[in-house]
Amino acid sequence: MGSDTGHLSILGYDPYKYYPGRGPFEALGAGIKLKPGDVAFRCNLATVNDENRVVDRRAGRISSEEAAELVESLLEVKEVDGVEILLKHTVEHRCVLVLRNGVSDKVSDVDPHKDDVDLLWPRPLDSSREAVRTSEVLTKLLKRYRMILEKNPINVRRREKGLQPANMLLPRGAGKMPELPSLSSRYGLKSAVVAGAALYKGVCSAVGMDVVEAPGATGTLNTDLNSKIKTAFGALKSYDFIFLHIKGADTAAHDKDPLTKASFLERVDAALKKNFEPPSDEFIVCITGDHTTSSLTGEHRGDPVPVLIWGHGVRVDSVNRFNEVDAARGAIGRIRGLDLMNILMDLMNRTEKFGE
Amino acid sequence: MGSDTGHLSILGYDPYKYYPGRGPFEALGAGIKLKPGDVAFRCNLATVNDENRVVDRRAGRISSEEAAELVESLLEVKEVDGVEILLKHTVEHRCVLVLRNGVSDKVSDVDPHKDDVDLLWPRPLDSSREAVRTSEVLTKLLKRYRMILEKNPINVRRREKGLQPANMLLPRGAGKMPELPSLSSRYGLKSAVVAGAALYKGVCSAVGMDVVEAPGATGTLNTDLNSKIKTAFGALKSYDFIFLHIKGADTAAHDKDPLTKASFLERVDAALKKNFEPPSDEFIVCITGDHTTSSLTGEHRGDPVPVLIWGHGVRVDSVNRFNEVDAARGAIGRIRGLDLMNILMDLMNRTEKFGE
Repeated sequence: MGSDTGHLSILGYDPYKYYPGRGPFEALGAGIKLKPGDVAFRCNLATVNDENRVVDRRAGRISSEEAAELVESLLEVKEVDGVEILLKHTVEHRCVLVLRNGVSDKVSDVDPHKDDVDLLWPRPLDSSREAVRTSEVLTKLLKRYRMILEKNPINVRRREKGLQPANMLLPRGAGKMPELPSLSSRYGLKSAVVAGAALYKGVCSAVGMDVVEAPGATGTLNTDLNSKIKTAFGALKSYDFIFLHIKGADTAAHDKDPLTKASFLERVDAALKKNFEPPSDEFIVCITGDHTTSSLTGEHRGDPVPVLIWGHGVRVDSVNRFNEVDAARGAIGRIRGLDLMNILMDLMNRTEKFGE
Repeated sequence: MGSDTGHLSILGYDPYKYYPGRGPFEALGAGIKLKPGDVAFRCNLATVNDENRVVDRRAGRISSEEAAELVESLLEVKEVDGVEILLKHTVEHRCVLVLRNGVSDKVSDVDPHKDDVDLLWPRPLDSSREAVRTSEVLTKLLKRYRMILEKNPINVRRREKGLQPANMLLPRGAGKMPELPSLSSRYGLKSAVVAGAALYKGVCSAVGMDVVEAPGATGTLNTDLNSKIKTAFGALKSYDFIFLHIKGADTAAHDKDPLTKASFLERVDAALKKNFEPPSDEFIVCITGDHTTSSLTGEHRGDPVPVLIWGHGVRVDSVNRFNEVDAARGAIGRIRGLDLMNILMDLMNRTEKFGE
């Protein structure tokens, strides 16, 4: 399960039906208004050597500040062979690329998804004219980006300091935005998202949720948890349903750093305790994850995630610790992500009886 | 759940989509190469009285040796009304019958599936010419088999000793082999089976797995467990995935003999402990069953089976006894057989991420 497909699932959208690739969600989250036909990619600023071998997919975990400035320098390329180019930095090494005008999403990933292998030049994934054209335009674009990035003073400085230069853009996850029925039309909920990272705002925007900004929300380990949780509870005054996304534990697990993961979760516990302000007796809270991330492999796993639901009228079981192993003994049992929204809707007394 | 459908499930093949009846799998396992259009039946050597009432579906649990010799005497019938006849003994009272040339699998079971009732002469299950012809040919064939078996010296001796004669063949489970996608094409695993009984080799062959023979593997309670487990671990040097089937506990439960079942399981424990040789740190082992067999009813049951998965990076829960009741409290929860291969593939780090 990816983060995008995982979020679609727990919001009640079958990813086998609705998933368009990650690019479009990331673009939406970054505030790019996609037009019909636009093709969006998720990109990493990366380090490649002279033979186009990927040395570091994350350019030595370059800072958001340096990455933003590097991406700024790429904005001079507005068009390639009649295809309009939109590019936007999001967080750390991440950015979003959108191609507009006669393009196809049937184009392969440039990002090889691991270090120490060659980057993969774009290939058309079907025989359409648009797919061939898109891969040609993308190849030209990436070569121009490479030239601009190599000369950028930030990279010159990084090389001098012995740091990895961010000298290439690696697009992946080409996709066009599908028509998604809105959360309000499906569930009758006025809803919003509080999140730091672009992807989660993007998924939620795609299903018609509002984005409520929390000051200091970064989508990384240094996020302002108090601000995010306060903002979420505050937003419950204006919304029926708030989705609060907290990213840090996943980030630490991707870095194979279980101790940082544990201490981050302890910070979440403390911040939740400090700022927990149910707006009414009817308030229901659900705490869960979109997927397991293994600190051992640094990758997502299919292992189930714990689910906690708390509130007036919610069945109480004998589990009193929130973790994967204890939760497995709980009264919810093992459910599918797609079941979650229906369960929550029911506990909010918002389901319609099927039959009499 | 049958043993064949159960095995299809835990290997990741939806039996509602892929199950062709038990006959074809049994034939494959017995080493008969099925041609397109062949119809295969699973058969018991049975005892019937002069009114064709089934006295004992298993002919007094006749030995493999006597059964093999009786089946040998039936091979003189090579053809009935232009339909070619193939017959092969497997284990104990069991054998496989294949009809070839213009036949249909739409023909009813002759085996009534219980004792003390009349055998059921074959009936066509649709109105096709082939189905009518097949049931007519099968009826003629069974009557000829009856005459041959009654005169066989083995049966004369058995009657003299007061034993049930094996004087009839009871076919059931007519089926044609479907096209099954191979396990290697679906999962990218080079895989093999270690099993005693024909059926399990047959199911695994049908999905393209190799058959690795273990000396002394009989598919009954007297099997050589040490040999089977050693063979399975040895085969891991050449294969990514080994399916080891152990039959005895099921056999004892079918005989409503829970004490023999328990002592057989203790022998499995001991043999596993003695011969457990993980070939690498990445080795994952899963122990489970294809279905419950109740020692009370002597029949298969829909009750869930315990599943144990052990290996590097596999989540550890608080269950430390492998049985149905303790396992129900475990972190795996209640899953479907069809989910198992995906879970194992994930724990082997062999799944592709869906989304990012």
